[in-house]
Amino acid sequence: MPVPGPGYSITVRLEAPPSASAAGDLTGAVGRAGGVITAFDVVESHGDRVVIDLTCNALSANHAKDITDTLETSPGVVVRKVSDRTFLVHLGGKIEVTSKVPLRNRDDLSRAYTPGVARICQAIAENPEDARRLTIKRNTVAVVTDGSAVLGLGNIGPAAALPVMEGKAALFKKFAGVDAWPICLDTQDTEEIIRTVQILAPVYGGINLEDIAAPRCFEIEARLRELLDIPVFHDDQHGTAIVVVAALRNALRVVGKDIRNCKIVVCGAGAAGSAIIRLLLQQTPGDVIAVDVDGIVHRDRENMDSNLKSIAERTNKKNAKGRLHDALVEADVFIGVSAPNLFGAAQVATMNSDAIVFALANPDPEIDPMEAQQHAAVVATGRSDFPNQINNVLAFPGVFRGLLDAHASTITDSMLLAAANAIADVVSPDQLNASFIVPSVFDATVSGAVAEAVRKQTAAAQA
Amino acid sequence: MPVPGPGYSITVRLEAPPSASAAGDLTGAVGRAGGVITAFDVVESHGDRVVIDLTCNALSANHAKDITDTLETSPGVVVRKVSDRTFLVHLGGKIEVTSKVPLRNRDDLSRAYTPGVARICQAIAENPEDARRLTIKRNTVAVVTDGSAVLGLGNIGPAAALPVMEGKAALFKKFAGVDAWPICLDTQDTEEIIRTVQILAPVYGGINLEDIAAPRCFEIEARLRELLDIPVFHDDQHGTAIVVVAALRNALRVVGKDIRNCKIVVCGAGAAGSAIIRLLLQQTPGDVIAVDVDGIVHRDRENMDSNLKSIAERTNKKNAKGRLHDALVEADVFIGVSAPNLFGAAQVATMNSDAIVFALANPDPEIDPMEAQQHAAVVATGRSDFPNQINNVLAFPGVFRGLLDAHASTITDSMLLAAANAIADVVSPDQLNASFIVPSVFDATVSGAVAEAVRKQTAAAQA
Repeated sequence: MPVPGPGYSITVRLEAPPSASAAGDLTGAVGRAGGVITAFDVVESHGDRVVIDLTCNALSANHAKDITDTLETSPGVVVRKVSDRTFLVHLGGKIEVTSKVPLRNRDDLSRAYTPGVARICQAIAENPEDARRLTIKRNTVAVVTDGSAVLGLGNIGPAAALPVMEGKAALFKKFAGVDAWPICLDTQDTEEIIRTVQILAPVYGGINLEDIAAPRCFEIEARLRELLDIPVFHDDQHGTAIVVVAALRNALRVVGKDIRNCKIVVCGAGAAGSAIIRLLLQQTPGDVIAVDVDGIVHRDRENMDSNLKSIAERTNKKNAKGRLHDALVEADVFIGVSAPNLFGAAQVATMNSDAIVFALANPDPEIDPMEAQQHAAVVATGRSDFPNQINNVLAFPGVFRGLLDAHASTITDSMLLAAANAIADVVSPDQLNASFIVPSVFDATVSGAVAEAVRKQTAAAQA
Repeated sequence: MPVPGPGYSITVRLEAPPSASAAGDLTGAVGRAGGVITAFDVVESHGDRVVIDLTCNALSANHAKDITDTLETSPGVVVRKVSDRTFLVHLGGKIEVTSKVPLRNRDDLSRAYTPGVARICQAIAENPEDARRLTIKRNTVAVVTDGSAVLGLGNIGPAAALPVMEGKAALFKKFAGVDAWPICLDTQDTEEIIRTVQILAPVYGGINLEDIAAPRCFEIEARLRELLDIPVFHDDQHGTAIVVVAALRNALRVVGKDIRNCKIVVCGAGAAGSAIIRLLLQQTPGDVIAVDVDGIVHRDRENMDSNLKSIAERTNKKNAKGRLHDALVEADVFIGVSAPNLFGAAQVATMNSDAIVFALANPDPEIDPMEAQQHAAVVATGRSDFPNQINNVLAFPGVFRGLLDAHASTITDSMLLAAANAIADVVSPDQLNASFIVPSVFDATVSGAVAEAVRKQTAAAQA
């Protein structure tokens, strides 16, 4: 059952009588309505009444309304205003553009703008590599979406996708000092997206594709990698794959298995699933079985697109057929990036001993993690209210920090793998256990470790 | 003769003997070489030597070298390092993207990013107007160039244009709190530029076109105004026209003339000249005579493009013919946005009494302003080392502040004219004189006054 979380948090400003029992009445009312109080502030106190800001977590808009209604039934209470704290955070947008140079007087203006700036322009015109030294290019990443596959919301378009891209830009700065800018494209045509990103590229040191639907995203990524001299990263693919591989590396350490002997089932063959499979195959696993809505991917299946065909050729050594439940039998690892509630404890019981289950569908996983734990040795989800959260924030900031610092012109699977190993190794042997296979997203050492690993791989590749 | 300015400023770190005469020797050496000292800092003092940072303005790279060489001839002086202060200002770029929201812990993350952000996306998907409330759109402007007509440098391309666009973004923030982002397009195809800006538009509340060559800029601007529901402003046209009209309004006050009786010569029929003519015509002047490299624009001229034809139809009441020098005879006002050194004092003498001369070609004006002053009553240039600098910084920050605050969907000539009048009126009657017809760019009241005027016009137009 879901619990009220900070993603739905309201602050209710209300008047109450100045009685000794008022606070108890209010907290009792919120509790009865199923809300969780996180702050209780008296903002005004008068002889006949007090004004209180009561902040609590709720489940949904309807639940927030229930809580407010219940509060109003308390004796003498008048609700003045209900603020949605999540909306307050987003008011006016979450990022801004600020100047790094002084503009106090005419001399400052003459250096930063005309006439002084002309010499900077000429230097870059004569030596294009100087753009990395004398402009924002050296630290700037484009976060590009067409709004076609945003979070779990689907195809909501470019304007409605902007809050996510702004959030991503804020995370880039917070976790790795990278300047990222949201680019929300008012087209969903593959060729137009490719051409537009190419036209925009001069300002940026890297491209982060985001929330673009499969299979369009594969072609866009592949073509842009050919066209551009800066690295192109698709977070839904590569970011997810990095963190999954990092978590798997540590989960295998916990159960003492070698990936070369493991049968790994990957459920979901979209952007994330395909990239996970590709990165797993770099590590010569025992076998990988891909499963999608039509069942196990095998070489005799009909009507496969080029992505599925390529997966079929490289996985499923015995060319097994059947459904997800068949694939799980004697599997060592399940990795799901697909849909909610696909199996239960009974199917986990058919997996090998010391099974590893990563149920990453959001917001509702492929299997309830409490159920998975009955038979699995290690369980991870994408949720923040359960141990072992698989969160891309562990990867993308450090990856781009490393790419930018190395002036990388491309990104390779070796770099992704190096990033995954770096994340895994932040968890020290004495910290590692079944409930702690990935570091916290707030572990300040993660992005530096990832950046360092990516920088080294880039230097090796460019040497 | 040009004088050394802060656009070319160097800091020389040197060692000198600790003698009483050392400072005099050094400043003397810089003076002999023609440099202008702006700072003299002793950074280390030892028994046998002092280390000094000597900052001075120079004319050019060669001149900076001369100054350094002359310093080295002073007795006992060793030059350690020469830093170009202009380049130092631009190192690593001049703007950055910063987060406006806290991201200290998991609750912050849950509100600013997943899962909380999903509700913000849904709100915008359901009501697109909410993008102006819940995203950066409400305060964000795209500064768009193709790098085809950058400053006086010409077609240097998108990467080399970036330092100017970054500077513009810094000025937008400094003077009006507007978030502006540089967009440097790697194409100079009119259709591609139009389509790209259209595809990018969802993130922005306004478009500022910049340094795009004529006549391409006219079509891009006109077509984008039709296609987009946000205002499109071309600073080289409209920004320049606003400030010129503001300056002219005050210059006419100084000489006591009415624009309805004035003959105005506009030299240059590119982006700036065409926009100035359009805005002048809004004020029913006595007559406007346009002049370009082929002489006076008249209705019988052959081989005119659509822009020149339109100008010919609306100006030059008597259909006069000839060259610039012919046009100047009995003119009341000259406005030049063209090329250096086109005429001299003798031609100004042929103008009407109390002539007004705006010689705005950069960096070298159509006539030396000292020469113009011999016969003209009011002289203005684009230069910062002469009174009455016509600088677009007076216009564009306030214009966009007003447009954004009013949620403007378009921009009209009435708004441009209102902005011009607001700039003119910042100069109070007791401040106004022949050497002070426009406010200082650092006058903090300008952008607010412009914004207020634009807001009012927008409200009136949308009412």
